[in-house]
Amino acid sequence: MARVRSGNTVTLRDVARLANVHPGTVSRALNAETRALVNPETAQRVLQAAEQLGYRPNPIARGLKTNRSYTIGVLIPDLTNPLFPPIARGIEDRLDEDGYTPLIASTDNDPERERVDFETMRARQVDGFITATARADHDLLDDIAAAGLPIVLVNRRLIDGGLPAVSVDDAEGMRIAVAHVVDLGHRRIAHIAGSQRLSTGHYRLHGFLEAMREHRLEPDPDLVVFSDAFTEEEGARLARELLDRDPRPTAIIAANDLLALGCFDALRERGLSCPGDVSVIGFNDMRFADRFDPPLTTVRLPHYDMGVAAATLLLERLGDADAPVRQILLPPALVVRGSTGRPAG
Amino acid sequence: MARVRSGNTVTLRDVARLANVHPGTVSRALNAETRALVNPETAQRVLQAAEQLGYRPNPIARGLKTNRSYTIGVLIPDLTNPLFPPIARGIEDRLDEDGYTPLIASTDNDPERERVDFETMRARQVDGFITATARADHDLLDDIAAAGLPIVLVNRRLIDGGLPAVSVDDAEGMRIAVAHVVDLGHRRIAHIAGSQRLSTGHYRLHGFLEAMREHRLEPDPDLVVFSDAFTEEEGARLARELLDRDPRPTAIIAANDLLALGCFDALRERGLSCPGDVSVIGFNDMRFADRFDPPLTTVRLPHYDMGVAAATLLLERLGDADAPVRQILLPPALVVRGSTGRPAG
Repeated sequence: MARVRSGNTVTLRDVARLANVHPGTVSRALNAETRALVNPETAQRVLQAAEQLGYRPNPIARGLKTNRSYTIGVLIPDLTNPLFPPIARGIEDRLDEDGYTPLIASTDNDPERERVDFETMRARQVDGFITATARADHDLLDDIAAAGLPIVLVNRRLIDGGLPAVSVDDAEGMRIAVAHVVDLGHRRIAHIAGSQRLSTGHYRLHGFLEAMREHRLEPDPDLVVFSDAFTEEEGARLARELLDRDPRPTAIIAANDLLALGCFDALRERGLSCPGDVSVIGFNDMRFADRFDPPLTTVRLPHYDMGVAAATLLLERLGDADAPVRQILLPPALVVRGSTGRPAG
Repeated sequence: MARVRSGNTVTLRDVARLANVHPGTVSRALNAETRALVNPETAQRVLQAAEQLGYRPNPIARGLKTNRSYTIGVLIPDLTNPLFPPIARGIEDRLDEDGYTPLIASTDNDPERERVDFETMRARQVDGFITATARADHDLLDDIAAAGLPIVLVNRRLIDGGLPAVSVDDAEGMRIAVAHVVDLGHRRIAHIAGSQRLSTGHYRLHGFLEAMREHRLEPDPDLVVFSDAFTEEEGARLARELLDRDPRPTAIIAANDLLALGCFDALRERGLSCPGDVSVIGFNDMRFADRFDPPLTTVRLPHYDMGVAAATLLLERLGDADAPVRQILLPPALVVRGSTGRPAG
């Protein structure tokens, strides 16, 4: 039986503080398999700090099977979409604390490249995957799961909920967006939906329809349009269609911020003002949303926290492959800025 | 002797078009070592297309040593800086054409994490590195070079020019920025410099000083301030200092766009208008620079092209380790928008 040390509540963070390094460096230095990743002098300083404080690694962590690579494959659909870098940062920071290094691949939303990225990472023997690329009906995910590799979805989930996932309550996000414009007095409310092959597009559309009905507003089929991609170009193309309706909508709720920026462009082309003629709401609160002209009212998602939660779920499964499949839904929040106001007239 | 096929000008792209796949998929399918990365049906289609067209792989490529992993480590200082994702995209697209897959790590501008990322990638046996993280005086680069691994710098270069690098002519960028505000009539011109430990900060400062002198304007030491990081917070902090000078500057040239956005914040705090009271110029032309309030006048760097050029240099060195060290300087361009105008009075 292990000797019990009384009052030993020393944590990895305490050791990190004393040795003046990252918690991740402590993890790596204390693990014989990963010690070589750390500068030898730094490793020595960590070992001394751990001994001085009487630090004992978490016994669950010590029970892990070995021969790990301590790398995690992270698949991102498009790094140039400002939504994803803060998610990636949250993943990195959380994995680093436990001594894991993420290797990121950007799939360009291309199933062929996604497959290559996945197989390449598997050949490099990553210990698991976090993916933000999952389409709602994705063969690749089945292959990963069949290969016995832990995988966690982030900002995406499967309609059937078969894999661990961290996402935001999209329906709730739409509910607060619809409530905001209804409170302002809007009745002709349009939705630029995302691709229905992505869970975000699917859940946001259904959230929009439900929220409208909760306010006893039957959604007008002419005011619900479908984008092929979450881009400014698609937002502008579909906003032009909506502005051709007679009467046109007084508010547009876009399924993400880039689509909302496209609405700004279409309004400017037509000489219409936002929010004077048409209010616009985005979804995500991506970086710089507060700096646009007008500043964008949007539904804020906690991107960094989503990354942290996804990494936490993956670490859970690395610790226990039979842990129950958890789905985490984080709450969204409305951020009211300059792009929404009362309807004209 | 190989049989000569007359008129054989079939390229990899022709095969890709016939098989309806990426050029990168053709590279991978035709290479026995990487074929397993491709879906078997797709590989079969590529092999048939290559046979049908009589495609012969490039003989130089066939002469490469084998046992490659066909992965390249890409080190990025901060993916949440909008500068870097388009560089990464250019790297990915170019590497993919030759069947290489980039694995990206984000170092958070932290030398400790950078070292871990590098060692982790080396342990995963990447064939080479592209790094945007190099400080001007960096031990790690020497270690990589000493390990015999090809490495290319992007958006950074060493002061002594000892490694292949792709960057922009920062001095020329500053010259066109200074010329623009001088032409508008400004004389009290300030510079918010980047960190002098980064080549971008170093070369942009020196470009600013030289360009001022070319216009017979002796730079005022009170109007040159130094940031610790390329962030909005640092831009705001230093712009406040500059606005406390008496008389204050009528134009501020920031060493990057995020610093320029911080200037907007400081001006707004003081109730000053841009460009009415103070003109502001950024550097980079990052995504959304045209959408800010006011739209940002800035020096455009060809980010995507920089990524493509860096990947091209690395592929050159993978083909011939003794290829001469090349430094590519791409030309910048001024983009005039709403944040610059004539000085008041």
